[in-house]
Amino acid sequence: MASPIPTHHKAVVYDKPGEISTRIETVETPAPGAGQVLVHLTHSGVCSSDHGIMTNQWTHLPPTPAGQVGGHEGVGIIAAFGAGAEAAAAAGGLKLGDRVGIKWIASICGACIACLAGRDAMCPAAQVSGFYLPGTFQQYVLAPANYVTPIPEGVPSDLAAPLLCGGVTVYAALKKSRAQPGDHVVISGAGGGLGHLAVQIASRGMGFRVIGIDSGEKEEFVRSLGAEAFFDMTKYSRDQAGSDKLAEDVKAATLRGVGAASVIVCAGSNPAYGQALGFLGFGGTLVCVGLPEGAPVPIAGAFPGNLVGRELAIIGSAVGNRKEAIETLDLAAREVVKTHFVLEPMSKLTDVFERMGRMELQGRVVLDLSREY
Amino acid sequence: MASPIPTHHKAVVYDKPGEISTRIETVETPAPGAGQVLVHLTHSGVCSSDHGIMTNQWTHLPPTPAGQVGGHEGVGIIAAFGAGAEAAAAAGGLKLGDRVGIKWIASICGACIACLAGRDAMCPAAQVSGFYLPGTFQQYVLAPANYVTPIPEGVPSDLAAPLLCGGVTVYAALKKSRAQPGDHVVISGAGGGLGHLAVQIASRGMGFRVIGIDSGEKEEFVRSLGAEAFFDMTKYSRDQAGSDKLAEDVKAATLRGVGAASVIVCAGSNPAYGQALGFLGFGGTLVCVGLPEGAPVPIAGAFPGNLVGRELAIIGSAVGNRKEAIETLDLAAREVVKTHFVLEPMSKLTDVFERMGRMELQGRVVLDLSREY
Amino acid sequence: MASPIPTHHKAVVYDKPGEISTRIETVETPAPGAGQVLVHLTHSGVCSSDHGIMTNQWTHLPPTPAGQVGGHEGVGIIAAFGAGAEAAAAAGGLKLGDRVGIKWIASICGACIACLAGRDAMCPAAQVSGFYLPGTFQQYVLAPANYVTPIPEGVPSDLAAPLLCGGVTVYAALKKSRAQPGDHVVISGAGGGLGHLAVQIASRGMGFRVIGIDSGEKEEFVRSLGAEAFFDMTKYSRDQAGSDKLAEDVKAATLRGVGAASVIVCAGSNPAYGQALGFLGFGGTLVCVGLPEGAPVPIAGAFPGNLVGRELAIIGSAVGNRKEAIETLDLAAREVVKTHFVLEPMSKLTDVFERMGRMELQGRVVLDLSREY
Amino acid sequence: MASPIPTHHKAVVYDKPGEISTRIETVETPAPGAGQVLVHLTHSGVCSSDHGIMTNQWTHLPPTPAGQVGGHEGVGIIAAFGAGAEAAAAAGGLKLGDRVGIKWIASICGACIACLAGRDAMCPAAQVSGFYLPGTFQQYVLAPANYVTPIPEGVPSDLAAPLLCGGVTVYAALKKSRAQPGDHVVISGAGGGLGHLAVQIASRGMGFRVIGIDSGEKEEFVRSLGAEAFFDMTKYSRDQAGSDKLAEDVKAATLRGVGAASVIVCAGSNPAYGQALGFLGFGGTLVCVGLPEGAPVPIAGAFPGNLVGRELAIIGSAVGNRKEAIETLDLAAREVVKTHFVLEPMSKLTDVFERMGRMELQGRVVLDLSREY
Repeated sequence: MASPIPTHHKAVVYDKPGEISTRIETVETPAPGAGQVLVHLTHSGVCSSDHGIMTNQWTHLPPTPAGQVGGHEGVGIIAAFGAGAEAAAAAGGLKLGDRVGIKWIASICGACIACLAGRDAMCPAAQVSGFYLPGTFQQYVLAPANYVTPIPEGVPSDLAAPLLCGGVTVYAALKKSRAQPGDHVVISGAGGGLGHLAVQIASRGMGFRVIGIDSGEKEEFVRSLGAEAFFDMTKYSRDQAGSDKLAEDVKAATLRGVGAASVIVCAGSNPAYGQALGFLGFGGTLVCVGLPEGAPVPIAGAFPGNLVGRELAIIGSAVGNRKEAIETLDLAAREVVKTHFVLEPMSKLTDVFERMGRMELQGRVVLDLSREY
Repeated sequence: MASPIPTHHKAVVYDKPGEISTRIETVETPAPGAGQVLVHLTHSGVCSSDHGIMTNQWTHLPPTPAGQVGGHEGVGIIAAFGAGAEAAAAAGGLKLGDRVGIKWIASICGACIACLAGRDAMCPAAQVSGFYLPGTFQQYVLAPANYVTPIPEGVPSDLAAPLLCGGVTVYAALKKSRAQPGDHVVISGAGGGLGHLAVQIASRGMGFRVIGIDSGEKEEFVRSLGAEAFFDMTKYSRDQAGSDKLAEDVKAATLRGVGAASVIVCAGSNPAYGQALGFLGFGGTLVCVGLPEGAPVPIAGAFPGNLVGRELAIIGSAVGNRKEAIETLDLAAREVVKTHFVLEPMSKLTDVFERMGRMELQGRVVLDLSREY
Repeated sequence: MASPIPTHHKAVVYDKPGEISTRIETVETPAPGAGQVLVHLTHSGVCSSDHGIMTNQWTHLPPTPAGQVGGHEGVGIIAAFGAGAEAAAAAGGLKLGDRVGIKWIASICGACIACLAGRDAMCPAAQVSGFYLPGTFQQYVLAPANYVTPIPEGVPSDLAAPLLCGGVTVYAALKKSRAQPGDHVVISGAGGGLGHLAVQIASRGMGFRVIGIDSGEKEEFVRSLGAEAFFDMTKYSRDQAGSDKLAEDVKAATLRGVGAASVIVCAGSNPAYGQALGFLGFGGTLVCVGLPEGAPVPIAGAFPGNLVGRELAIIGSAVGNRKEAIETLDLAAREVVKTHFVLEPMSKLTDVFERMGRMELQGRVVLDLSREY
Repeated sequence: MASPIPTHHKAVVYDKPGEISTRIETVETPAPGAGQVLVHLTHSGVCSSDHGIMTNQWTHLPPTPAGQVGGHEGVGIIAAFGAGAEAAAAAGGLKLGDRVGIKWIASICGACIACLAGRDAMCPAAQVSGFYLPGTFQQYVLAPANYVTPIPEGVPSDLAAPLLCGGVTVYAALKKSRAQPGDHVVISGAGGGLGHLAVQIASRGMGFRVIGIDSGEKEEFVRSLGAEAFFDMTKYSRDQAGSDKLAEDVKAATLRGVGAASVIVCAGSNPAYGQALGFLGFGGTLVCVGLPEGAPVPIAGAFPGNLVGRELAIIGSAVGNRKEAIETLDLAAREVVKTHFVLEPMSKLTDVFERMGRMELQGRVVLDLSREY
């Protein structure tokens, strides 16, 4: 099932971290260590976090080293097992040649309190794919046999790749929304990489009634994904009056006009957060997902009088865990959620990042790792 | 069991709302309407919200009318029934002469979505005792027969009174803390009117391990209520370095040093809120209870990167509902929680409010409504 | 909007309780008391519980008196208010002429522990429509203004009627299923009066993956309602081997073959209960809804070793509360759930009950109360 | 810190499985494999499950092989690491010489759906200590470095041992009880090995109000552990009338006489299960823990009419997971729960099992593995 393993393979590396610049290099294909699988990658999604890592935007962390292989939405087949890994893979239902995914959190210690609580992203020893650890912008990568995500039959590998980050993230966020089936949930940034997945999972997968917010040209797209209402945020003034009017309109679109049960802010935008609490009815929940760049700004409206007076909640949601990754892919296998993406060869990665930086991308980009050009 | 009902009774009124000024007046004793009971009040707690109402501190609301009878922590006996009220009272296990309590939320519509969800404080038709509606600083008051709180045998009326506001409020807040038995819960403002009740309920009633925060002279009191650790906030500098040091010390006091599962901010203080998120471990919850006066200030640290990065939650909790009021008094009946208070006659109310304004009160004050002087 | 109120109206009564026999009578139209509305009924569903009441099948309860007006799935318009009822109705968003529903639980005390916990059916003072209390097989009925269920615009009254019992019941049961969106839920008795509503709400409203079980001629119907798999129980032998084979087949139809997350037994059949635990995966939940007639039989498989060994749960679910009734009708307003029914005039009630007793009914029957013949 | 590792050590083996017979043997001390630690055991609790394994009472499983080393409540120190085990142990906060515990579930696959859901006992690859796998009735045992339970400072090893099975089991069961702090919880078999731990954890650790049921000579003991009420089951006749009277008395002891929120049946007795549902108030939960021997008997009262009519639940609880084991030992570190036990040398194991078989044991027995005689 698996092809013979080469001695070397192609990888796209950040050759000048701090700038948008990548280069294809030939690197040695590593042998899997104890408990590891070697995955022959065929596809990798490209996420804005990769852009941030490459350009050293997270200033509280050490700068990215030159030669870093990025990427954390990889899909490929198990090509080889390290010592003891075959049994570990079998426990998760996997064997040689099976398709698996590699996600943002690429490994955890499995024994700390965070791991035991199923909060993988909180494990102090968690390793992030493509961040110091070699990532998925290459043809072969190592991963723990007991931590890769099985890709269900019927889900194409290119479609699956972006679900391993964006899909899992919004699914985990929706599970924290405290909304019940039939409740209205607002997706802020509904047409974006995260948002377009959230709209589908919320409406088709969880029984929520979705209200999408984004710029107007995405309305048709967002409605086609399952949103029953849409508001073009660009039609509202950017001051308090505009926010108030938008809140009023969103509330009017909810059942009995009481306001939404939850807002999932997928947009990494402080103004989006500033508006969000206004959409909620009493007892409602704002789930934070998108991370604004720049200096931290407290969420407008997050003052005690407002939260107490309407019994609101604000909940931060990081990426999901292994179980949530599996459940997200199960949703894809049922065609509840589909990724909208374009395929590009490895050589186009710099170009992709440049367009990403200029906000020109529509949906996700997935690298076809079988093609250099 | 019940004494004959007089035609008139004594009430303490706010004679010059906007200022600290009260006067005892003789008012007509009303007859209970359909579904109402007339309660012969013997005690009423005095709460800082009464102070706020009297002095018109809530500037977004209409000013308090002269002659307003304040108070929302009343206890007395059922003296008479209006039409249909006897059956309604019986449904709640009550009959003529039984002791009942009147709380902040004095009546609700019972049919709106908020009421059906058990979120009494969110009912648009909810009436607040002592706020426009005549309150409990008087010897007789009307109340809905199906909404008064039964006072269990063995709980003295004076001790019960403050539980109807402060006790219910912190109990409802602790139930929203998402903490599990054995988890560390920080009570900020641990020695105050709300906080001293929260420490007892959390540690003796719910199996939490309590860390108290207040000024140092309250340490012994707070520890005697069940706190296993205490931090004197006055020993930390009021800048970021002080907050960071306090957070470090609080975390070190928690199990495995991971931080608290929850912080209940009982203090109405923006700096207290600003410190609170720092006490939490991953997945922790800040519950907002205390309401700072003055212009609203967003909670420091309530920005997306912090909430997402540590999967924190901030939850606002208003006062509890009828079921929670009953459960709070059940805790008192088992002596899990005791109010610390001093008794004063009606004539001392102005003096009490003056001392309250100067922060000179220790614990709660309860008016003995059988004594004018 | 409302027609003038007559002095008398038509009612169908059980003239010989113990037998299947009804007669149309002219009865006095009552005036609404304090807090009551008079509802001009246009439709009433006919439920198998009505059949049970008429024929005195619940032998632990007093026999039904001759002249009892049955029915507990009524829909009509508010025709008049008793004292204080207009305000109570307004709190629930209702005014004269609005359409409302009357359900199995027709009134509650509103003040006992069960009521405060939202468990209306557990209120000791709860009154059941058509059971001692005059029911909905008549043109006018009294009901508490704060307890009738608003019928949303766009939901036809005939379609709404059966939702007030069957719809609410299965919705409340599904909420107790402990299943997550994407989980497999088995509906046992999927084509019946309760089951056909459960299949729709589970699959279209809550994101569950439904496996239907019933006799084979209902397969197409059940699949059309949203079931993704169906098993014809008549094709399995009625012994343990047959049960085991059915369990094996059901499990094979679930995700990764681990078994269902929940089974909702809508069929009032001991063999259906006996099979149900076998369908579950570890940690699964059997929800009891249907009530077998005859002497009580413990659920086969409900022994400690089985429940502990697979960490199973068995949960009994009675009818839902007011909030759940409103949510069920919200689902109908979105066309998530539709009742399959036939309309009959009042005079056909005896005939309907006879066919019900012979199991000849397909879907629900709704009485058109505007037509005697 | 750790002594030199011997080539051989002493073990107590079942030399004639099917009978009560053990013998001390000298066995080879194994070297830890990849990911394993070698634990130098100092203590092991003796559980009735060991008795069952030795005497082949679980007839649906293969018979126990001669020479089996039993035991699944072991405590000792980490004496050596296999390949990669040091890092795995460090992730859980452990190093050479640290004290750790080994419990019923001794290892899991860590990758299956059950493991990802935190339901360790449901892992198909789970291995049980002392059941086919060599257990803790010996001086050295192998265990997965990432699966041993850290023993907190201040908890003596002999006291800790029985908590690893009985303590974890009842803690996990209490967490499934759906009871709230302040609710009444009945512990059936309150004075036994499981029950005496349940009473302490429930009352002192979780804020429940405990009602103990056992035979009368245990009343004082059970009350000393925190039970506020006690019923001597031997004073009630063993027929339905006796059960009804006991249920009536238990209910009368609960708040407002409504019945208990939960019953935890620790006794492995069908009659105990048969009585349990009668103790519950509406919405109550029976948690199954104790496993009756002999042919399976469905729980009396577990028929649909009873479960639906009072909205009861029955939930099976197996042993807890790693997180629950850690939390149980945290309770012991705070002295919330203490094991009542006697220490015996290895040579007394046969005698201990004989007394266990004759029901003569009071509390738990712990083997002191440093003493042969």
